[in-house]
Amino acid sequence: MSIVSPLAPKAMITLQPINGVLLASHACGLRYHGRTDLMIIKLAIGTTVAGVFTKSRMAAAPVLWCREALIHGTARLIIVNSGSANAFTGKTGVASVQRTIDTAAKLLGCHKREIFIASTGVIGIHLDDFKITSSLEQILNKLSDNKWIEAAKAILTTDTYPKMATRTAKIGKTVVRINGFCKGSGMIAPDMATTLAYVFTDAKLSSKILQDLLTSGVKKSFNSITIDSDMSTNDTLMVFATGKIIHQQINSFTDPLLRDFKKNFDDLLLDLALQVVKDGEGASKFVKITVSGASSVRAAKKIGMTVANSPLVKTAIAGADANWGRIVMAVGKSGELADRDRLCISIGGIEVAKHGQVALNYDEHSVNTHMQGSDIVLNIDVGIGSSKATVWTCDLTHAYIDINGSYRT
Amino acid sequence: MSIVSPLAPKAMITLQPINGVLLASHACGLRYHGRTDLMIIKLAIGTTVAGVFTKSRMAAAPVLWCREALIHGTARLIIVNSGSANAFTGKTGVASVQRTIDTAAKLLGCHKREIFIASTGVIGIHLDDFKITSSLEQILNKLSDNKWIEAAKAILTTDTYPKMATRTAKIGKTVVRINGFCKGSGMIAPDMATTLAYVFTDAKLSSKILQDLLTSGVKKSFNSITIDSDMSTNDTLMVFATGKIIHQQINSFTDPLLRDFKKNFDDLLLDLALQVVKDGEGASKFVKITVSGASSVRAAKKIGMTVANSPLVKTAIAGADANWGRIVMAVGKSGELADRDRLCISIGGIEVAKHGQVALNYDEHSVNTHMQGSDIVLNIDVGIGSSKATVWTCDLTHAYIDINGSYRT
Repeated sequence: MSIVSPLAPKAMITLQPINGVLLASHACGLRYHGRTDLMIIKLAIGTTVAGVFTKSRMAAAPVLWCREALIHGTARLIIVNSGSANAFTGKTGVASVQRTIDTAAKLLGCHKREIFIASTGVIGIHLDDFKITSSLEQILNKLSDNKWIEAAKAILTTDTYPKMATRTAKIGKTVVRINGFCKGSGMIAPDMATTLAYVFTDAKLSSKILQDLLTSGVKKSFNSITIDSDMSTNDTLMVFATGKIIHQQINSFTDPLLRDFKKNFDDLLLDLALQVVKDGEGASKFVKITVSGASSVRAAKKIGMTVANSPLVKTAIAGADANWGRIVMAVGKSGELADRDRLCISIGGIEVAKHGQVALNYDEHSVNTHMQGSDIVLNIDVGIGSSKATVWTCDLTHAYIDINGSYRT
Repeated sequence: MSIVSPLAPKAMITLQPINGVLLASHACGLRYHGRTDLMIIKLAIGTTVAGVFTKSRMAAAPVLWCREALIHGTARLIIVNSGSANAFTGKTGVASVQRTIDTAAKLLGCHKREIFIASTGVIGIHLDDFKITSSLEQILNKLSDNKWIEAAKAILTTDTYPKMATRTAKIGKTVVRINGFCKGSGMIAPDMATTLAYVFTDAKLSSKILQDLLTSGVKKSFNSITIDSDMSTNDTLMVFATGKIIHQQINSFTDPLLRDFKKNFDDLLLDLALQVVKDGEGASKFVKITVSGASSVRAAKKIGMTVANSPLVKTAIAGADANWGRIVMAVGKSGELADRDRLCISIGGIEVAKHGQVALNYDEHSVNTHMQGSDIVLNIDVGIGSSKATVWTCDLTHAYIDINGSYRT
C-alpha cells in the first residue's frame, strides 16, 4: 500500500462480531508479496443474500456466476481474491470459477449456488485458482468472528486504506447490527454497484426484501460517486442477512418496522461509498456537487456526473483554481436541459455566478480560500425545474497519472 | 506559447494567397501581453459561407450570433479574438457582440449578417470590446493576402503551434485552392465542429453546397477527435468560398464535378483536426483507434470515443504500458453491443487479445516496443457486425495537469 490518502478517516473503526459471520484472510501469493490476497467469509445456514453488479458488457467470470447463483437466495460462503480480476479470461476464467466453487461446495457440504465469488486486480491475466483451492481447507479452519479488518485488507488493490462502516438499527424494540466493508480507488464510476462491497446484518430479512433495500440504497450512494468515469468489469455489492437475531417479522420492503433499518442501511452504504471517493487514486480534495433546478432527478444526476467527470473541472480543483467557467462548460456539454441565463453556481456557499453571468460583488478571495481546503462544495442550479441530486468525486492530480502510468509494472 | 508539442509537424507550411481573402492580426491587449490576440479577415463581395457550431447548451454569445447570421448566406468580414471566450457573459456578452458587429458593418458598409465573430479563451469574464472596435479602422488598413500565419497565430490560446493546411482541387479542368487554419489544444471533444477553424476557397459554391460539404466532412474529422472529452462553449468551424476563380458551375452537393474538391476538402479538414490532437494539452503520444465489427457506424464511433476518453487507457498509454485490459474495460462501459467472447484487440498491428482472452503467442515485447513510440495504433473488433469507425486522441500526462491546474493564473 502506498502513502495513505490525505482524505482518509482520521481513526480506524472496529467492527463488532455479527452472529453467523466468520471471517479469515490468507496470503496465497497470487500476485502481491508480503500481504494477504484472499478473503473467506462463512455464513450461518439460512443466511439470505442480495446483490447488484456492474453493467459493463465485459463483466468478469465471477460476476456472471454471482448473478446466476443469486437466484437461490441463500449464501454460505464468500471467496474474494485480489491481484487478478479474472476478467476477459474467456472459458479459462469460467473454468477457474467453477473449480473454486466445486472445491468449496464439497468442503462445506453446501449447494454450489450458496457460494459467492469475486476477483479484483489486473484485467486479462489468468487466475491461478489452484493457489486458492489448495489453501481452502486450511483457511476454513482459521475462521473467526473478529477478523473484519483482516478481511477488508485482503481485498484491496490500489486502495491506501481499508474501508469499513458499522451501524445499529431498531426493528421494533430489538437492536440489530449492520457491518460493511469495501474496496475501490480507481476505475470507479459504478452503475449499479461499485468494485467489491460486502454488507452483513444479523437481522432476519428475506432475500427479496434485501434486494429491494440494496437496489434502493445504491442509487444515492455507490451509484452517485465517480473517481475517473471508468466503470469496472467486476463491480459487485452484496448484502447478507444471517437472521440470528430474533425480532418482529418484516413482511415487505414497505413495512414501517423496516424504517429505521432502511435509514441506517442507506447511511452505511453512503459512508462506504464516500470512503471510496476519499481514497480516489491520487485524490487531494473531496468534492460534493449538488445540482438543483433540474427537469428530473435523472437529469440532475447526469449534469452532476458530467461536472464530476470533467478533466478540466477536476484539474482546476486540484490546482485550487476557482475556474467556474469550466463548470459552465461541463453543464453545457451534459446534453441535459439547463437555462444559460438562469444558471447559478456557488462554491463553498459563496455565489460566483448568477443568472447567466458572474455574480455581482463576486467575492473571489473567499472562494479562493475555500478552494485551498480539502473539502470542496459546489452547488449548481440550472434554472429549469425543481429536481435535485448530489454526487461526489475527487480531484485529478499528478499522483493519478503516476499510479496509472505503471499499474502493472 | 509554451514548449512546442513533440508531436508538432516537423516543418511549418506556407499558405498561398486566395483571391478574395485579405488578412490581418493585431495586439489589442485583451489579456495576453507581447502577442497578437485579434484576427481580422475581409472577404470579397459575394463570398458564400457555411458553418457548424458547438452543441453545448451553454453556447457563447458569438456562436449565437453566427448561427443567426448564417441565414444570410454571404460573408464580408471575420473578427476573432483570443483571451476571453465571451461565454457565460449574459446580456453584457450579447451587447459586446452587437457593438462589434455594428462598428464593423458601418466601417465596411455591409449588412450586419455578413460579419462573423468568434471568441476563445477564459469562460465567464467580460470581453472589453472597446479594445477591438477602437482598433478596427486601423486594422482594416493593414490587410494583406499573405498574412495567413499571423492570422493563425492570433487566435491561439494554450496551443503550442499554429495549425494550417492547404490543398488544391480540380473542378473540371480548373484548379482551385483550399486554405484552412484552426486552433485547439484543450476542452476538445467537438460535436459538430471544434474550437475555431476557418477554411477558405476561391471556388464558386453556393452556401447550400458549402454547408453540405461541411456537415459531411466534419463527421470523419473534427467530430472524430477528442483530447479530454470536454466540449467547448465556443466551437466554431466555418468555410468561405470567394468564387473568384471561373470554373464549370456546380449544381449540387452530389454533382460529379465536385468529387475531387470534396475529397481534398475532407482531407484538409482531417489534416487540421489531427493537428489539434497532436497539440493536445500535454500530449506526448498520438493515438489512432479503429473500431470494427460494430453494429453500426454510430456504435463503432461511440466505442472508439469511450476508449479514447478513458483516463485509465490514456494514462496507460502515457506510461507506455500495454495495459489492454483497460481497453476491454472501456469497450464494456460504452454501453454499445460487443461480444466479450469474440472481442479482438491489436496494438501496433500485433494481436494482443483474441476471442475473449489474451492472444495465443502474445508477443508482449513487440507491443512494448510499439508503446514506446509516439504514434500508437489500436484496432478493436467487437465481433458483432460489419460497421467501422476511426477516432483520434492523445495520451493524458502530467503536463495536462500542469497546464490546467493554473490556466487562469
